[in-house]
Amino acid sequence: MENMLEKRFRLLIRCPDKVGIVSAVSAFISDRGGWLLEANYHADQSAGQFFMRHDIKADQMQISIEAFKREFEALAQAFDMTWWVTDASQPKKVVIFASLASHCLVDLLHKKVSGDLNCEIVAVISNHDKLRKHVEWSGIDFHHIPFSSESKDKSYTQIEEFLSQYQVDLLVLARFMQIIPEHLCDQYKNRIINIHHSFLPSFIGANPYQKAYDRGVKLIGATSHYVTTQLDEGPIIEQDVIRVSHRDNKDDMVRLGKDVEVQVLSRGVRYHLEDRILTYGNKTVILE
Amino acid sequence: MENMLEKRFRLLIRCPDKVGIVSAVSAFISDRGGWLLEANYHADQSAGQFFMRHDIKADQMQISIEAFKREFEALAQAFDMTWWVTDASQPKKVVIFASLASHCLVDLLHKKVSGDLNCEIVAVISNHDKLRKHVEWSGIDFHHIPFSSESKDKSYTQIEEFLSQYQVDLLVLARFMQIIPEHLCDQYKNRIINIHHSFLPSFIGANPYQKAYDRGVKLIGATSHYVTTQLDEGPIIEQDVIRVSHRDNKDDMVRLGKDVEVQVLSRGVRYHLEDRILTYGNKTVILE
Amino acid sequence: MENMLEKRFRLLIRCPDKVGIVSAVSAFISDRGGWLLEANYHADQSAGQFFMRHDIKADQMQISIEAFKREFEALAQAFDMTWWVTDASQPKKVVIFASLASHCLVDLLHKKVSGDLNCEIVAVISNHDKLRKHVEWSGIDFHHIPFSSESKDKSYTQIEEFLSQYQVDLLVLARFMQIIPEHLCDQYKNRIINIHHSFLPSFIGANPYQKAYDRGVKLIGATSHYVTTQLDEGPIIEQDVIRVSHRDNKDDMVRLGKDVEVQVLSRGVRYHLEDRILTYGNKTVILE
Amino acid sequence: MENMLEKRFRLLIRCPDKVGIVSAVSAFISDRGGWLLEANYHADQSAGQFFMRHDIKADQMQISIEAFKREFEALAQAFDMTWWVTDASQPKKVVIFASLASHCLVDLLHKKVSGDLNCEIVAVISNHDKLRKHVEWSGIDFHHIPFSSESKDKSYTQIEEFLSQYQVDLLVLARFMQIIPEHLCDQYKNRIINIHHSFLPSFIGANPYQKAYDRGVKLIGATSHYVTTQLDEGPIIEQDVIRVSHRDNKDDMVRLGKDVEVQVLSRGVRYHLEDRILTYGNKTVILE
Repeated sequence: MENMLEKRFRLLIRCPDKVGIVSAVSAFISDRGGWLLEANYHADQSAGQFFMRHDIKADQMQISIEAFKREFEALAQAFDMTWWVTDASQPKKVVIFASLASHCLVDLLHKKVSGDLNCEIVAVISNHDKLRKHVEWSGIDFHHIPFSSESKDKSYTQIEEFLSQYQVDLLVLARFMQIIPEHLCDQYKNRIINIHHSFLPSFIGANPYQKAYDRGVKLIGATSHYVTTQLDEGPIIEQDVIRVSHRDNKDDMVRLGKDVEVQVLSRGVRYHLEDRILTYGNKTVILE
Repeated sequence: MENMLEKRFRLLIRCPDKVGIVSAVSAFISDRGGWLLEANYHADQSAGQFFMRHDIKADQMQISIEAFKREFEALAQAFDMTWWVTDASQPKKVVIFASLASHCLVDLLHKKVSGDLNCEIVAVISNHDKLRKHVEWSGIDFHHIPFSSESKDKSYTQIEEFLSQYQVDLLVLARFMQIIPEHLCDQYKNRIINIHHSFLPSFIGANPYQKAYDRGVKLIGATSHYVTTQLDEGPIIEQDVIRVSHRDNKDDMVRLGKDVEVQVLSRGVRYHLEDRILTYGNKTVILE
Repeated sequence: MENMLEKRFRLLIRCPDKVGIVSAVSAFISDRGGWLLEANYHADQSAGQFFMRHDIKADQMQISIEAFKREFEALAQAFDMTWWVTDASQPKKVVIFASLASHCLVDLLHKKVSGDLNCEIVAVISNHDKLRKHVEWSGIDFHHIPFSSESKDKSYTQIEEFLSQYQVDLLVLARFMQIIPEHLCDQYKNRIINIHHSFLPSFIGANPYQKAYDRGVKLIGATSHYVTTQLDEGPIIEQDVIRVSHRDNKDDMVRLGKDVEVQVLSRGVRYHLEDRILTYGNKTVILE
Repeated sequence: MENMLEKRFRLLIRCPDKVGIVSAVSAFISDRGGWLLEANYHADQSAGQFFMRHDIKADQMQISIEAFKREFEALAQAFDMTWWVTDASQPKKVVIFASLASHCLVDLLHKKVSGDLNCEIVAVISNHDKLRKHVEWSGIDFHHIPFSSESKDKSYTQIEEFLSQYQVDLLVLARFMQIIPEHLCDQYKNRIINIHHSFLPSFIGANPYQKAYDRGVKLIGATSHYVTTQLDEGPIIEQDVIRVSHRDNKDDMVRLGKDVEVQVLSRGVRYHLEDRILTYGNKTVILE
């Protein structure tokens, strides 16, 4: 649980592994008066990659985040880093996309309203009007943008205009069930989180609960992942499962699965909002 | 998942164990054209008790539920049964009690609105006005009944009048945090479900998350139970846990625990609504 | 936990669902003095199938199991039942097949030696000699039958002779890693249990942990299932998972997975030994 | 999974939190050619304590571990550190204490024999002779030291002589069920791991499964912890649970609990062997 009033920076780094990275970065931070609240490092020896996350109490740092970015650049180049730094006191801007299923949507809204999710939910966009009352009690805007099969391109143009207007950081597909166009996937690379209602890679595509029922599995699951142009193939952020039995038919699985989807999506969104996720290849490193 | 339009009876029985119970009961049902959808039996050999639940498709039964009750009585007496039969097509009437914490409340309301909880929520009663907007979007009535330390008796009198007016089947304490008076515990014996935010019997009483943090446990939990006059000592219906670590302070535990409380309470409420719970001594038998 | 000295029968039934099955069967049992210790019923409404398991205390029954079989046959035919009855006091005869990995093997042997698995393990058969000392301390015979690529047919002939000599009830493939010939699959239908080291249907076939590592999943699992002629496609008996992270490489997954494999296989074997498994289509009903 | 042939150091530190710790320590390491394989930091803000673990690839370090210790001392004093460094290529020496229950013992022996536990098990000491054959197949020495009520002091004297002879690093109480004398608790502070067969702090003391059965809990658990002079009150290392139901009597709980005890103890032992555990107050920090 973070106190959002204090000045805090988060520094995320991925670079080729070698001697001296931690030493150089931590000297940079402590020389400027930064205090480490949390630091997580991971070395993938087979890939030769090093991953770092620093959560920095910056009250005593004399420099702004812009100055931090400028000054860090030389060190970053020396170690060939892919990196970013964020101001943890600035909540990320989020848009949630929903359709007809309300469980993930209501959970995220409720967690936001309760102070358990540190972000600004700019709006909920839905291709149906059904969930309007599920949203408006929370004080968050609900936009109904119809998706007919002929007008999908037009609908996505509307959406893109909306997103660019607000400088949105993260798109959350809360059971949106629509294919995201390739150029949007590219534009928001590692910034669109989807919840798939199966334990991937099992039961890719439509009707995973029916497929799970037909196969007679004893656990069903859910997966939150970044969206890529390959359906259900993006980097997995979080997964979980729940036990089912022969007594559960497909409708029971749908119902039981909802609680798992809710948890798996909200945990994935939290990791992203707290800048805990680095990707490489088709995988994630979750620095918690 | 049950189709609520068809005629269905649920028959719950507890009696001393002996030869011939199942035979006698199932003959009674099949002689009247009843079709078993589900049947669960449990014998506790050490206690010498037998427990039964029948879920009966009653479309072809010529008798009403009143006639069923009358005709079954002779058999029930012969085997010294404690028993009841319910009409599954009549949703139970529920009142939810809340205070300041919204997570369990919103989850139950959302599950009701989504068709995932087969009951009629008559009203939400709260000793604070804070959660009004969390409730009213769902179309369910919100009653604010203040609880000052001097007026508690008066508040409970108001509540009792309300309950008797609606013939309420089940009271759900969704983090209500108030002691229920003894005579109400007695009147609604095995019909008041509370959620306690620890894995009982650990951390009975106030501030269980603080106690869990101080002890350094590696899992935190929640417990739904029937309310008795002994605080946190009633028959346990359901429990679950979630992993925590040294990184989680007390506030993190509060946040992480919410998801567990939500699941444990809603599963407990579902068991009750589906007439799956029999109690004996200070324990429950969950016939699922 | 069962007291194996008393006379106990287990009656397993699958039949088309209709009115009166429970009544007829329970009357048959109680008329002969049988006392129900446990009874589990399941109706699959979509398939129109009914499943029953009775655990019967037979001390007061005047008839032998042979007489039970004869007398029950008329009732079985009337309801078109697939059924069997077993004498629970007669432990089933089991042969375990192992290769180079010892974890599932040692767990099963230890549970047997500790009195936690009610069966007679006739022998361990292995295509390598490596695990001899892992077995012989337990007093159970270890047979090394080499499998060269040219001599597999001969090896299986040896195995079949061995099995027929002992009237073996159950074959357990404890990471045996060899394809079972089609005619053996047929002969021991629903009597060969395999442990697959993934959460099926994910990662069918060889090297599931490598595949799990490559995909970047956040949970790995194991599956015990009856062996059919379709590799890793037989009816699933039990599954479970364990959490992994980016810190776990493929070797860590192999190590972590062992504990899950052990549990999932021993639970599956226990269900079989206690006559709790009925199959239909490609699924299992576990009557516990 | 670690390659034990390469030169590796593990550096564990606890100190008051302040600016510059990571920077100073990582500079010390990289200046001497050390390569960080893993680094974990934790700041407990309320306690003002900082915790660090470094896993250092030391192939290119010119200094011995003795020189490392000497040279690091100045830095350690400057930051008021409690610290140690170990040579990861030197397996720790372990003695396992057992009594009549074999499950935790056999699991640890099997993991050692399989190469899944990086330690040297010097001996198994037991107050009964019953488990001799469970041990000797593994090639590890079994010592039977009888514990009569009159001779306990003498038995412990024998044990102490044995321990001092071998310079034992860790004592594992694998269901030993005997109280450890105070002076041994002190001498091996944070080096004696016990497995308690309940989810502490529930059901402290004797017969926890009976107590769990009597209370009617829906999950049972196990706890591995460092032994202190307060029974079952030492710092908790690891916990886990398994679901039970009304169908499980006390003997079933004993059986089901074994699998949890096995996992919880072996994970706790692994954390210790890999120098992942720091304690403070009555809690552990597990740096994994």
